[in-house]
Amino acid sequence: MDSRTDTRDREFPCREVIGKPFPNSRKVHVEGSRPDIRVPMREICQGDFVSASGVEANPPVYVYDTSGPYTEAGVTVDFMKGLPELRKPWLDERGDAPAVFTAGRLCRGPAPGAGRMLRRAKSGGNVTQMHYARRGIITPEMEFVAIRENQRREGVNEILGRQHPGWDFSASIPEVITPEFVRSEVARGRAIIPLNINHPEAEPMIIGRNFLVKINANIGNSALASSVMDEVVKMVWAIRWGADTVMDLSTGPDIHETREWILRNSPVPIGTVPIYQALEKVGGKAEELSWEIFRDTLIEQAEQGVDYFTIHAGVRKDSIPLAARRLTGIVSRGGSVMAKWCLAHNRESFLYTRFEEICEILKSYDISFSLGDGMRPGSLHDANDAAQLAELKTLGELTDIAWRHDVQTMIEGPGHVPMQLIKENMELQLEYCREAPFYTLGPLVTDIAPGYDHITSAIGGAMIGWFGTAMLCYVTPKEHLGLPDREDVREGIVTFKIAAHAADLAKGHPGAQIRDNAMAKARFEFRWEDQFALGFDPEKARRFHDATLPADADKSSHYCSMCGPDFCAMRITRSIREAAAEAADDDGLRAAREECG
Amino acid sequence: MDSRTDTRDREFPCREVIGKPFPNSRKVHVEGSRPDIRVPMREICQGDFVSASGVEANPPVYVYDTSGPYTEAGVTVDFMKGLPELRKPWLDERGDAPAVFTAGRLCRGPAPGAGRMLRRAKSGGNVTQMHYARRGIITPEMEFVAIRENQRREGVNEILGRQHPGWDFSASIPEVITPEFVRSEVARGRAIIPLNINHPEAEPMIIGRNFLVKINANIGNSALASSVMDEVVKMVWAIRWGADTVMDLSTGPDIHETREWILRNSPVPIGTVPIYQALEKVGGKAEELSWEIFRDTLIEQAEQGVDYFTIHAGVRKDSIPLAARRLTGIVSRGGSVMAKWCLAHNRESFLYTRFEEICEILKSYDISFSLGDGMRPGSLHDANDAAQLAELKTLGELTDIAWRHDVQTMIEGPGHVPMQLIKENMELQLEYCREAPFYTLGPLVTDIAPGYDHITSAIGGAMIGWFGTAMLCYVTPKEHLGLPDREDVREGIVTFKIAAHAADLAKGHPGAQIRDNAMAKARFEFRWEDQFALGFDPEKARRFHDATLPADADKSSHYCSMCGPDFCAMRITRSIREAAAEAADDDGLRAAREECG
Repeated sequence: MDSRTDTRDREFPCREVIGKPFPNSRKVHVEGSRPDIRVPMREICQGDFVSASGVEANPPVYVYDTSGPYTEAGVTVDFMKGLPELRKPWLDERGDAPAVFTAGRLCRGPAPGAGRMLRRAKSGGNVTQMHYARRGIITPEMEFVAIRENQRREGVNEILGRQHPGWDFSASIPEVITPEFVRSEVARGRAIIPLNINHPEAEPMIIGRNFLVKINANIGNSALASSVMDEVVKMVWAIRWGADTVMDLSTGPDIHETREWILRNSPVPIGTVPIYQALEKVGGKAEELSWEIFRDTLIEQAEQGVDYFTIHAGVRKDSIPLAARRLTGIVSRGGSVMAKWCLAHNRESFLYTRFEEICEILKSYDISFSLGDGMRPGSLHDANDAAQLAELKTLGELTDIAWRHDVQTMIEGPGHVPMQLIKENMELQLEYCREAPFYTLGPLVTDIAPGYDHITSAIGGAMIGWFGTAMLCYVTPKEHLGLPDREDVREGIVTFKIAAHAADLAKGHPGAQIRDNAMAKARFEFRWEDQFALGFDPEKARRFHDATLPADADKSSHYCSMCGPDFCAMRITRSIREAAAEAADDDGLRAAREECG
Repeated sequence: MDSRTDTRDREFPCREVIGKPFPNSRKVHVEGSRPDIRVPMREICQGDFVSASGVEANPPVYVYDTSGPYTEAGVTVDFMKGLPELRKPWLDERGDAPAVFTAGRLCRGPAPGAGRMLRRAKSGGNVTQMHYARRGIITPEMEFVAIRENQRREGVNEILGRQHPGWDFSASIPEVITPEFVRSEVARGRAIIPLNINHPEAEPMIIGRNFLVKINANIGNSALASSVMDEVVKMVWAIRWGADTVMDLSTGPDIHETREWILRNSPVPIGTVPIYQALEKVGGKAEELSWEIFRDTLIEQAEQGVDYFTIHAGVRKDSIPLAARRLTGIVSRGGSVMAKWCLAHNRESFLYTRFEEICEILKSYDISFSLGDGMRPGSLHDANDAAQLAELKTLGELTDIAWRHDVQTMIEGPGHVPMQLIKENMELQLEYCREAPFYTLGPLVTDIAPGYDHITSAIGGAMIGWFGTAMLCYVTPKEHLGLPDREDVREGIVTFKIAAHAADLAKGHPGAQIRDNAMAKARFEFRWEDQFALGFDPEKARRFHDATLPADADKSSHYCSMCGPDFCAMRITRSIREAAAEAADDDGLRAAREECG
């Protein structure tokens, strides 16, 4: 009962703090070909531009919305009940994985998943989106992500729609994302839709180089700190700021329970590293791990609804000595655990030898592989070395095997890499893994900025995203130093939204520049409230503005606090435009006037 | 008297807060060919590595030190007296600009510059470093910067000295920086040493693409906020965190006095935008500016010792209409002021028509040009447009004129630019301005992150620094929103140290990786105190570590708070190495053991 009380007490501050709609925004749903395909977006309403020449209306801007029902006006989520099962009708319709058996009682206290029915593919069946795609089937999930990726930009006006040509390094980004395009990308393995059939609460999303670059946020308690409910709140907080997926890296005793609470309340796909829980089961002794313990852990998590598994199957016995040459050895937790197991038993890793059996499990639930980079470099010194590249090649071979089972697969990448070596990582990944989506941590472009590693990694992340990485794993300011608190999570996420969006712009992703253009116009028209609302973090932008110009009247002032009124370049430019409009005897200026209306 | 009291009161907290040496560090001076060439560096002392196999000493690491006497143990700077005149003997020796006349009394209250002697080149003389360099003279200033750039790396050991090959985009970075190399780079205009003969307190530094990438921090009060002494403290704070130069962008009534206090206490070059003060003199009315007022302002600031002037001489009457086509017009304050003047008078800008007269003034004091980009884009939408590129071409022509006068020159650059357009900026600058150093603001790679523009600009800054930009102007988190406070200044500077250093690494600058390698080794050996000291911000790193593991004992713990002891990959790797050392029957592991010692 303690746990229950604890939970209920904590719900209310959560709702107040993190369950609010964004300013000047409302959630809208775009309907697909059937009424139960309702794709959420955030509509940002803009103010009019009022000037001497009249009043000009500014259109709303639609942005990708990861935040789920939490930011919908009038909706209150009861963590104990969990979110509605959005995908239930689609899963029922397909009928290849009926909800039949009941969840085991693995949670110690009350949990939202208690008593719910579970799904698994009928014997010998395959329920992956890739499997459907390869048979030519466009699922509702595929249509959902197509609508979502387009961000309702079809009606955008000429000014907001202008965009610089991109440089896409041979990606294949279409002008409009169709459901058929989604299907074809999933079929060829170039994109994944990570959606366990036991996580029907999730809103479908896609990860692939020809789609918007996504970001992942890691949460999770450790043996040292934080409670179950803290992690649920962190998840809701993370999706508020834009996390497209969340990985639960918990390692403490509450590992099953934490995951259950997160899954039932998460509208985004949840990833885990199952070896962490397996290791808990053997008291932290890597050498006592076995295939059976690992397999049972996979099934346990599969039934809970985990959408993708990080599995370090590329750490092979014979390549471990390569890591001994490094300055920082093996820095991946999963990688080091498996390396230790291999050495203790003098045998090949069971993750590698049992890989096809793992595929069999994953295809029964539609869990995606995130093939872990156990050999990722932990320092610039170790970047792009033999250990790392040997593993990447193995991951390419494993991708082929996974694809033979129609199991969706993405590949994890480094790590610490100086800028001049980033491109090589991307190129080799595309080559070895035949364009399976790349999912990278950073990379961090220098080692000497503890306390600022969200920034060192956003620099590398923006670049590798531009080069073709499909999803960036965020890094918080606490990386290398401690466990992130809620503010660190926000800082990390917004920083990675910047990196991902910068990459979308650079690739020339259609519509990527709309929000930037809207912001630029709002700046030039001194629409402060619209500037706040259009930014990734309206709350911080407003707080910073208030720090210098706290009065409400300053929100409509026609200058900004950096320069004051006399030095306001924007203001002077306006007067130049007006002068231009009057100076009818000057050819150049007349032309200019005609151009800018 | 109020001002005096105010000043003295504020000195003490400053000293305590910002005048402390860095942890585990001491200031050392490397002597050149004569005893008065004493180049400051920061020596970071590292702890031993204690393991089962014994005690291994770790060598000290030397890092570039911009912080001046403020971080020297036992030194107390009296702001009222100012810093010692480091370059006085060299200026006296040259004898071409004797200290003869006395500073006018332009400060309203007491100021450290009162009564000091001023220098100006003898009639018709030229006292620029470029002038000496072109006559084959290696000045003490050139030798100073050569020693400084090498960072005493000649004795570095093999592990710390390892470095990935760079990709330098046809730069010409030598293995060792010699005084003769400095001379030749200054002579051909590819680097500048910004040092006004009236700022003898400054420690020489160099800006050029074949040297370490530098960063600038802007400070300055405005009509709306902040006092004179606040700005001095901000300057000391800025150089503590690594600002290589500081621009004083003050615009209020105390503009002269603020500058005097800053200059007399600054060991780094100070830049200004003289048009700001000229505009103050005409009550903020751009159209009332005149060449005479501007000229007198240049001379006033030249006598005070300003090291470089931003001059927006590239904003030409005929190209102003190009900016009217933009989404955000002209966003440069100086640029918009001059555009307004041109339109009001229907005449070419006096900065352009009087450019040779400006050169005459600058060469009499050795002030460097920072040719302003009045037409820089204020939004992605306006990036690389005709207005911007036309101005860049003009700046190239003006560079030629400045070089005919042997006046040192750098070129300011954008601004807001999406990643895929950054390289074009750099390439055109190198072409139009014949490799004169490029000095850019960011660029910001997206417009939609107010509150995080230090990050949007560090992404662009790291990239353009890699491509060849010599100095990056920092951006703080308050950009576009308000005036930065002290914490914003620190955040902005450290962020840009990251960008600049990432660029040095990517170019393959010799020795750039030493500090990264030292950090990697300190991480692997769990030397927490050394990790803090080796980072750009030891104080924040320690604070973050303390937030999770506050006990002193945790500073020597052999795991970190992210994972706890059982999941520590580094710890497991160590045990793998030990196992490898024992497993003498395994060939691969034996080889590994031999490799890693």
